[in-house]
Amino acid sequence: MAPHGDKSHAAEEAAVSQAENSPISTILIVIAMQTEALPVVNKFQLTEDPHSAFPSGVPWVRYHGIYKDLHINVVWPGKDLSLGVDSVGTISASLVTYASVQALKPDLIINAGTAGGFKAKGAGIGDVFLASDVAFHDRRIPIPVFDLYGVGLRQACSTPKLLKELNLKVGKLSTGDSLDMCPHDEASITANDATIKDMEGAAVAYVADIFKVPTIFVKAVTDIVDGEKPTAEEFLQNLAAVTAALEQSVTQVIEFINGKSLCEL
Amino acid sequence: MAPHGDKSHAAEEAAVSQAENSPISTILIVIAMQTEALPVVNKFQLTEDPHSAFPSGVPWVRYHGIYKDLHINVVWPGKDLSLGVDSVGTISASLVTYASVQALKPDLIINAGTAGGFKAKGAGIGDVFLASDVAFHDRRIPIPVFDLYGVGLRQACSTPKLLKELNLKVGKLSTGDSLDMCPHDEASITANDATIKDMEGAAVAYVADIFKVPTIFVKAVTDIVDGEKPTAEEFLQNLAAVTAALEQSVTQVIEFINGKSLCEL
Repeated sequence: MAPHGDKSHAAEEAAVSQAENSPISTILIVIAMQTEALPVVNKFQLTEDPHSAFPSGVPWVRYHGIYKDLHINVVWPGKDLSLGVDSVGTISASLVTYASVQALKPDLIINAGTAGGFKAKGAGIGDVFLASDVAFHDRRIPIPVFDLYGVGLRQACSTPKLLKELNLKVGKLSTGDSLDMCPHDEASITANDATIKDMEGAAVAYVADIFKVPTIFVKAVTDIVDGEKPTAEEFLQNLAAVTAALEQSVTQVIEFINGKSLCEL
Repeated sequence: MAPHGDKSHAAEEAAVSQAENSPISTILIVIAMQTEALPVVNKFQLTEDPHSAFPSGVPWVRYHGIYKDLHINVVWPGKDLSLGVDSVGTISASLVTYASVQALKPDLIINAGTAGGFKAKGAGIGDVFLASDVAFHDRRIPIPVFDLYGVGLRQACSTPKLLKELNLKVGKLSTGDSLDMCPHDEASITANDATIKDMEGAAVAYVADIFKVPTIFVKAVTDIVDGEKPTAEEFLQNLAAVTAALEQSVTQVIEFINGKSLCEL
């Protein structure tokens, strides 16, 4: 964790401009659940890093490999050390994103995963969305400015050409640490104007923003939040089928990114 | 972020046992707000680390110094880079704890800060509590085992002698990312049997637990959650006075720790 070293403002701007115009080389795909990650890992024949880019003791897993001109890294926060379930949610996602950015210096982050969708906003089961922006819905801090910090609104990396080529749906993503939705969450999700709801996106965006790594969010809908079925039941029922749709979209995104710079997305 | 290297199970146990019997040397004090941190920084005449133990770009601040036999580090997640308010809440707390544990290898973590208290459970303004255990109240995942992961119950380091000597109050701590409390949070806080409520404790515990660093939680009550005044108003009104009480208790804890091993706390 050595400091990057100080750069002058002009040098930093030049570096950013160069990065935007150079072909994307290293991508970091952050995925919260093993079920969501493995189809992508298998598709690109990625291998698990036995020496790990991470400190000893953490459950985080990195899969990596070369595909065409890209170094692809899939990181997954792993199974909880005491309970054995996937380490979902904002804390694990932020930690593994932080450690991965430090170790791998990616040019682009893709946060891929499943999400709940709102049918009132046009979402259906199996739809794959590219989030236009992300925010939190369960960090209510009713003190001026702290309230905005709690919401944590951030823009996804602008990708007009990618969007046109792939014909994915576009919507705002709202993030919270609960799978269900209580009335206070619902009010915040409405205020966020969200079409999709997940448990990691805004946390990945928070860390990516600190280090100025452009990030896109690919989210496939497993359950309809404003529908009639209980979320947990519908989520588990559709998880396997929807991860296949997610893998297809992530593959399309990677194919599109290959050989392009950030400006060309 | 080099791996610690692999140790055999027996060697690991021997190392843990040795650590428990050796005098505590390096302590890491994680504090979320500058107003809470500065009285402790001033009391122990700590200086800000200009080269930082952290990567370039993060707002996190480390103050450090020697006091008697102890290397004292106070880390504070700093001001939000775009909004300028203290980086409160679980994500920043987990990130700064992770980076500090990696950089400083502390023998003990103290998470100190202000909290809301429940008068029905015996809390009053200005009371200082040592948390017996910590859990989350805003991570509802109604799927078997994931529900337990969401709650994330963890024990604080056992400190019977410290408790007897300092005569602090003891209670369970519940953590969430909102300053206020919605009915769903309240139900979870009741299920957690909590006397005090904060925005960082269980996140610090999560990271500390991964790396097996014993942790204690010193929390001073700024507002009564089940009282009549609005939380934000009462919190801001009492913040300065209560941070003085917090500093006194942290000082007493540090004085008590000095020269002792974990077993003697």
